[in-house]
Amino acid sequence: MNLTIDTARLTRELETLATFSDAPQPAVTRIVFSEQDLRARVWLKQLYVEAGLDVREDAVGNTFARWRGTDPELPAVGTGSHTDAIPHSGRYDGTVGVLGGLEAIRALKRAGFQPRRSIELLMFTSEEPTRFGIGCLGSRLLSGSLTASAADCLKDSDGRTLDEVRAAAGFHGSLDSVRLDPGCYSAFVELHIEQGPLLERRNVPLGIVTAIAAPASLWVTIEGEGGHAGAVLMPDRRDAFLAAAEIALALEAAALSTGAIDSVATTGLCEVFPGVINGVPSRVRLGMDVRDIDPERRDGMLGKLKLACGDISRRRRVTARIEMINQDAPTTCAPAIVDVLAATCEKRGFAFDKMVSRAYHDSLFISRICPTSMLFIPCRSGFSHRPDEYSTPEAISQGTLVLADALAQLAC
Amino acid sequence: MNLTIDTARLTRELETLATFSDAPQPAVTRIVFSEQDLRARVWLKQLYVEAGLDVREDAVGNTFARWRGTDPELPAVGTGSHTDAIPHSGRYDGTVGVLGGLEAIRALKRAGFQPRRSIELLMFTSEEPTRFGIGCLGSRLLSGSLTASAADCLKDSDGRTLDEVRAAAGFHGSLDSVRLDPGCYSAFVELHIEQGPLLERRNVPLGIVTAIAAPASLWVTIEGEGGHAGAVLMPDRRDAFLAAAEIALALEAAALSTGAIDSVATTGLCEVFPGVINGVPSRVRLGMDVRDIDPERRDGMLGKLKLACGDISRRRRVTARIEMINQDAPTTCAPAIVDVLAATCEKRGFAFDKMVSRAYHDSLFISRICPTSMLFIPCRSGFSHRPDEYSTPEAISQGTLVLADALAQLAC
Repeated sequence: MNLTIDTARLTRELETLATFSDAPQPAVTRIVFSEQDLRARVWLKQLYVEAGLDVREDAVGNTFARWRGTDPELPAVGTGSHTDAIPHSGRYDGTVGVLGGLEAIRALKRAGFQPRRSIELLMFTSEEPTRFGIGCLGSRLLSGSLTASAADCLKDSDGRTLDEVRAAAGFHGSLDSVRLDPGCYSAFVELHIEQGPLLERRNVPLGIVTAIAAPASLWVTIEGEGGHAGAVLMPDRRDAFLAAAEIALALEAAALSTGAIDSVATTGLCEVFPGVINGVPSRVRLGMDVRDIDPERRDGMLGKLKLACGDISRRRRVTARIEMINQDAPTTCAPAIVDVLAATCEKRGFAFDKMVSRAYHDSLFISRICPTSMLFIPCRSGFSHRPDEYSTPEAISQGTLVLADALAQLAC
Repeated sequence: MNLTIDTARLTRELETLATFSDAPQPAVTRIVFSEQDLRARVWLKQLYVEAGLDVREDAVGNTFARWRGTDPELPAVGTGSHTDAIPHSGRYDGTVGVLGGLEAIRALKRAGFQPRRSIELLMFTSEEPTRFGIGCLGSRLLSGSLTASAADCLKDSDGRTLDEVRAAAGFHGSLDSVRLDPGCYSAFVELHIEQGPLLERRNVPLGIVTAIAAPASLWVTIEGEGGHAGAVLMPDRRDAFLAAAEIALALEAAALSTGAIDSVATTGLCEVFPGVINGVPSRVRLGMDVRDIDPERRDGMLGKLKLACGDISRRRRVTARIEMINQDAPTTCAPAIVDVLAATCEKRGFAFDKMVSRAYHDSLFISRICPTSMLFIPCRSGFSHRPDEYSTPEAISQGTLVLADALAQLAC
């Protein structure tokens, strides 16, 4: 089979997708169910139709584009990723897996390949937690990792429920209907930028993911007492922000204390109330993210954070309430899929590393219902979630080629 | 002279003014030149006209309501305060000095008093720094403490200049015209809630202010490097928020280190960019407020903050840029005015304390152009800048009575 990737077209499509953005170029902001997200979805579905794929959307907006196989009753082979983007991020995170997946299918069609199993390209809704606080919303629902009733009660920062927001975006029906049967796919492969520096440092063009780290995310809400910045004396203060500052530093200390390079913890969000220069903060909400390959070590960090919250809030006479958003198990990727990806790289003479993903992805949840692995390509300096995120057209093309070849083998 | 305060009417007017608010009751949010602020100004001017006062507004919206004296060429006696309110604050800060000042004038009129000097009630624009970052905007301009060109370039958080915003609110003309001649007032007295706990603790109904503490406020902007919360390893991070957390704690330590009860320092505002739960913060802006009765001690705190910013930013490989918003001298109130207020209290048998104001007020700037003092009344638990700010009708009435009596003596 003579597989060729149309790199110029794929590059152009990535550029076009980046224009559906609420931030000026080169930054990309595409929040789930925003007008830009909805416009991007329309554009994307048009590409699917032009490629001759059958398109289906579920009640939460997960989009499925199917290339019907000669034996359509067999479980399909899946690929795909997400297209939403956190504020002021880049253009490659997720999108490479969706548009690369599409180009892989087009390449197979051009080569005259006829799959026995159907090949299905997925675009998952809200991989990013920006709007509803929880990441991988679509794939959690698909895999049954999140119940429909819990999901429908999620609220965005304007207090609108997921139920309202998805209805306004045109996605109706019970979220119960989103869940897929285990075994509906025989295999799933997600193409993605690495979002870390290892492939670039080692000058290796491809990474095959053998495990995905265990993520947890949480809110910590600190309540103290507000007052006038001039008039409230220092010994009388119960300053919520200073307590929050100590709690954020305690989380960092917890991550450093494990001694493991795979332990990472971040306070990415800090909302201060009332948030005025001459008022003592009365309430602060921190958004925190804690990850490790080893779930016990990850939970050890969470335990240390909990202890620190107790100590700090007692000493500063505030309250600190921890609310877990998610605390997921890690996954080990399916050896059979890893083997197919490795054999494909070897056949084509591409060097690869087997590696773990410290970032988590929809594949973490899809792996609960079918054999799954991921294919990583390098990104410059490991930068991601920032405007200067970058992968070369060659790297994207190479990843797409290996993906196409692997899908063909998995669909035979 | 038989002076009586219409406490019921004054209480009702304070209640009405509190309804011009962007926050639900009992909280008050009234940002300068917001629709609610403009509606409150219209309502207030109507009250002035009903009281028979001549109303004038200057180019920045400072409002002057004059009761013409029998010798109108003499410098007038001034009183007044502000009506803007920080987000989710209370209904007494500033408003007691404006509506109390109005009721004092009405009481003098009812008693048949005829002043030799004109008595002028001032409502200062933007005492609160919420919108433009700098407090006492109106009185700074009146007193020449802020130049017109510097003021016109101030921007609000939406990037609109003061010049645009005041024009949209209907205030035109050069800000140079706002400045008053020194000597335009023979005396100025501002009635205000204490915003601290001392009068209540000591069960004293009135405070006469002998000095106003030296305030400083500043922005600290920390720039680090963003990235993915899962993928960027801890040793590679240049997290702007963790640096900001340490800087805020260093400011608190600087305030505690003076050993003086009058040293206070606050980080009231913290903006995190991009501000997402799964992204390492790349930039943080802190809004800080530092005050002391002793300007050298205050500047000592600022020096320690500066050193800490240097140490922390070197260690965490970020940059920290300090931008002073204001760094004002303290003021000593005019002994002659303090004496008049003290004699008035004694004559009426009201206990009083002479005290310093740790909060700063428009009087700090008006004191640069005329003899000035302030009259404080207790507020519950010293609470201010919060929805449960409260002074009793009796306390407000007593303060208004002393103010009226003192204005009469100063206007003779």
